[in-house]
Amino acid sequence: MAPSAPRTALVLGGARSGKSRFAEELVARTGLPATYLATAEIRDAEMQARISAHRDRRGLDWTTVEEPLDLTARLADLADPGRVILVDCLTLWLSNLMEAERDVVSEGDALAAALAEARGPVVLVSNEVGSGIVPMNALARRFADEQGRLNQKIAAAVQTVFLVAAGLPVRLKPNPNPEFVL
Amino acid sequence: MAPSAPRTALVLGGARSGKSRFAEELVARTGLPATYLATAEIRDAEMQARISAHRDRRGLDWTTVEEPLDLTARLADLADPGRVILVDCLTLWLSNLMEAERDVVSEGDALAAALAEARGPVVLVSNEVGSGIVPMNALARRFADEQGRLNQKIAAAVQTVFLVAAGLPVRLKPNPNPEFVL
Amino acid sequence: MAPSAPRTALVLGGARSGKSRFAEELVARTGLPATYLATAEIRDAEMQARISAHRDRRGLDWTTVEEPLDLTARLADLADPGRVILVDCLTLWLSNLMEAERDVVSEGDALAAALAEARGPVVLVSNEVGSGIVPMNALARRFADEQGRLNQKIAAAVQTVFLVAAGLPVRLKPNPNPEFVL
Repeated sequence: MAPSAPRTALVLGGARSGKSRFAEELVARTGLPATYLATAEIRDAEMQARISAHRDRRGLDWTTVEEPLDLTARLADLADPGRVILVDCLTLWLSNLMEAERDVVSEGDALAAALAEARGPVVLVSNEVGSGIVPMNALARRFADEQGRLNQKIAAAVQTVFLVAAGLPVRLKPNPNPEFVL
Repeated sequence: MAPSAPRTALVLGGARSGKSRFAEELVARTGLPATYLATAEIRDAEMQARISAHRDRRGLDWTTVEEPLDLTARLADLADPGRVILVDCLTLWLSNLMEAERDVVSEGDALAAALAEARGPVVLVSNEVGSGIVPMNALARRFADEQGRLNQKIAAAVQTVFLVAAGLPVRLKPNPNPEFVL
Repeated sequence: MAPSAPRTALVLGGARSGKSRFAEELVARTGLPATYLATAEIRDAEMQARISAHRDRRGLDWTTVEEPLDLTARLADLADPGRVILVDCLTLWLSNLMEAERDVVSEGDALAAALAEARGPVVLVSNEVGSGIVPMNALARRFADEQGRLNQKIAAAVQTVFLVAAGLPVRLKPNPNPEFVL
């Protein structure tokens, strides 16, 4: 693959927007074997049901790895020009980091830096959470803030960004109509 | 009209995004008489005020029909190549179905199947509800999930999908820039 | 500058979407000196921290003016073909108006009318707040409604509208793909 070819992508979308399914399609179209890097810790029935539905959609050429916290180190271990890594999702990762009282800003910086020098193709999924009414409780507000900052940081580091609504993607980067002047 | 011409459209948008107004414009541009198929049950003053405002925007060549639950059957009854049906909106329909403890998955499947074979033009309006912080109560979370799944299903079944923000539409399907690769 | 050149712009986005930063870039690209017209009343530590972060990003060729309520009159005073005014943001302005029990509809109409005849370039920032689950309390619901209506009104009055997600803009107006038919 040419050095200029897009190799890292961020797929953004709201809850139940079809973002994970679209990210899986991006991966499948590469024709490469894939590693599903799940940030979920499977702790309740609702989450189990969601992950099972995801697993049912994925075929047998997928390997699944769970990593709730040390995502950047795990990505470095797994990176391979001949395999695609699908990280699903950064929202659960952020939630895990906050629960573990990690420094989310430096963790985000480290992930962005690693993506800018990724040795193999990576697709990351993340939630858009900032387009509703600002939450009344301070923790939810802080989560929305950190999620927004993380999304901006990762969007700046990867080569391609998609926003998904109702299963349909819009490409934000590279922007097909980049005339951004007053 | 040629068989390949778009005849079914979904208009998505947040609350007060101007999605209903844009959907009405789509309908008006066809030059055909129209049926407004309201899913609202008018139960309080706030809802009455909203529906009256919608009615004021619509002209005299509109017929209004209310159908809170059996939308797919009613669509089949009303379908006519010479009339446009405007369904406003799927979010209230979903809310009515859940309150009546109907099977929302099979109801959504039936609507999608009916739209794929619609005998006349149909425009449907639905809310984007998944781009805020995940709600804390389980019912709201379930509603957001079902709404997202329904939107994906209907978006896959219709020929054209628009996302509206601040009264301004973005066409998601057919996508004008369909380069969706890693 | 030619009379037909875009001179007024609205930048929409969710919380922490990067909308203010993008608006600042739009302003900086004009090469003109700028006035930052803040609608914030600085009342707590959280808001102080946010405003300081904004200030740190802005350079020394910026003048800052605070105007929580009488935005339209202040814009008329400050308008100048040789300076750009950045209004950040309409969401705080709306919140201030509602708290002061002003008539938000006529205030929005007056702002829209003033923008349609602006004597100098203006960039306005506003939040998208309607794409989450509808809030349960009536005040939040009313705020979401009024914000959506204000965004539609201002979007109709200005020449250019951008929607920002993860720091990346999509131009909604003029729309690069304006094929909006059923």
